[in-house]
Amino acid sequence: MHGTYGSERPEEQHPGGVTQGGYSGDIVVDQNYVIKVPENMHVAAAAPLLCAGITCYSPFINHGIKAGQNLGIVGLGGLGHMAVKIGAAMGCNVTVITRDESKRELALSFGAKNVIISTDKAQMDAAAKSLHFIYNSIAFAHDIHQYLDLLKSNGTIIMVGGVPQGSMPAGSFSLIPRNLRVAGSLIGGIKQTQEMIDFCSKHNIVCSIEMIEATPEAVEIAWKRTVASDVKFRFVIDTKATLPKLA
Amino acid sequence: MHGTYGSERPEEQHPGGVTQGGYSGDIVVDQNYVIKVPENMHVAAAAPLLCAGITCYSPFINHGIKAGQNLGIVGLGGLGHMAVKIGAAMGCNVTVITRDESKRELALSFGAKNVIISTDKAQMDAAAKSLHFIYNSIAFAHDIHQYLDLLKSNGTIIMVGGVPQGSMPAGSFSLIPRNLRVAGSLIGGIKQTQEMIDFCSKHNIVCSIEMIEATPEAVEIAWKRTVASDVKFRFVIDTKATLPKLA
Repeated sequence: MHGTYGSERPEEQHPGGVTQGGYSGDIVVDQNYVIKVPENMHVAAAAPLLCAGITCYSPFINHGIKAGQNLGIVGLGGLGHMAVKIGAAMGCNVTVITRDESKRELALSFGAKNVIISTDKAQMDAAAKSLHFIYNSIAFAHDIHQYLDLLKSNGTIIMVGGVPQGSMPAGSFSLIPRNLRVAGSLIGGIKQTQEMIDFCSKHNIVCSIEMIEATPEAVEIAWKRTVASDVKFRFVIDTKATLPKLA
Repeated sequence: MHGTYGSERPEEQHPGGVTQGGYSGDIVVDQNYVIKVPENMHVAAAAPLLCAGITCYSPFINHGIKAGQNLGIVGLGGLGHMAVKIGAAMGCNVTVITRDESKRELALSFGAKNVIISTDKAQMDAAAKSLHFIYNSIAFAHDIHQYLDLLKSNGTIIMVGGVPQGSMPAGSFSLIPRNLRVAGSLIGGIKQTQEMIDFCSKHNIVCSIEMIEATPEAVEIAWKRTVASDVKFRFVIDTKATLPKLA
């Protein structure tokens, strides 16, 4: 495991000091770990695909999610909005599950066919046992059981957000009666990442981004807006103009 | 849902009183819900296949467990010993994980290739990341994380025992870093049950049983031994001689 930036491990420092990884103006990388971004893809909007994009793409392959299946996306943030775009391009019937009515139009514009407001019991009840898979992108403590109820028998909820114990199934009987499954998924390897980039290029999918300058002031504002969930949907730092090149 | 016995629901009572289900001398059943037990199969030893057998067989089909894969069985009781027999007949490399050294010979006799003593850290460490699937048949509170460590990346632990919250993954980061999966599985449908019986008949598999008479005294002794984990591996009540026939 090599961290991409901020590492103080000597073997990750070249030519010395803390590594800046992806925040560098120039970087030397083993050719086996370079992803080719096609010409037709805006490089800034492609950048978050290498994290949010592959995180959402990988489970489609690893779990064999197929066109025509019903896919729920819980949360419409940086990960969730990519899962909607990729899921729609895969031919899935995408349902976004959100607390926030104001996200309906955005969800539909990304390719969702349905939006369910999770605080509306009638809507949740109407959608019971309807989904083959759910992507759960929530990254804070919450009750997972209301989403388990939306799964068909043999359905899988895929956790891509880090959540504490209270947000996991309470006991095995939360899963046993309908053969439900809970899976974790973490980003993806180089081969799948290239496959994802090629898939997104073919389907004209990029991340929805806001570009900021590589200044402490701009980063500070972006960080505060991120914490306040006020980002549509990833900030990208433009290092091109502001960072020095290696000698 | 119709319970098999002990029900006080009027629609399950015929010709009146509490239904005795499988404990009856005679029973009337819809032909679509009858399983055909082949002539070569001892009917008493086949009886628990309709619960323990199908509970262990169903995940092989639903999860696509294949010959040559490494399968761990946690616990060698009524469910666990059937999972070993079926797993070995499926061509899996079966490893039994148990606290009880005295179960080694039995596990090997049922077709296991390896036995790991779960309280021996060196044995557990040596088996880290080695298993494609684990059947967890433990039905009381325990720490699941030591078993998660035995799974290969993308591996699945299948819960067939009812366990409370402390026995489930502590948070999503117990699953995310290596794409692990936790599944519940409950018995199986009629079609799979017939398939299981035919599979077991072909491979000369039955449940290891102890027969008892249908008397209150015999049942009381069997119940106490079951609670004390002193049963190899299922008690079968012989109702043939002792129960009255319907008029």
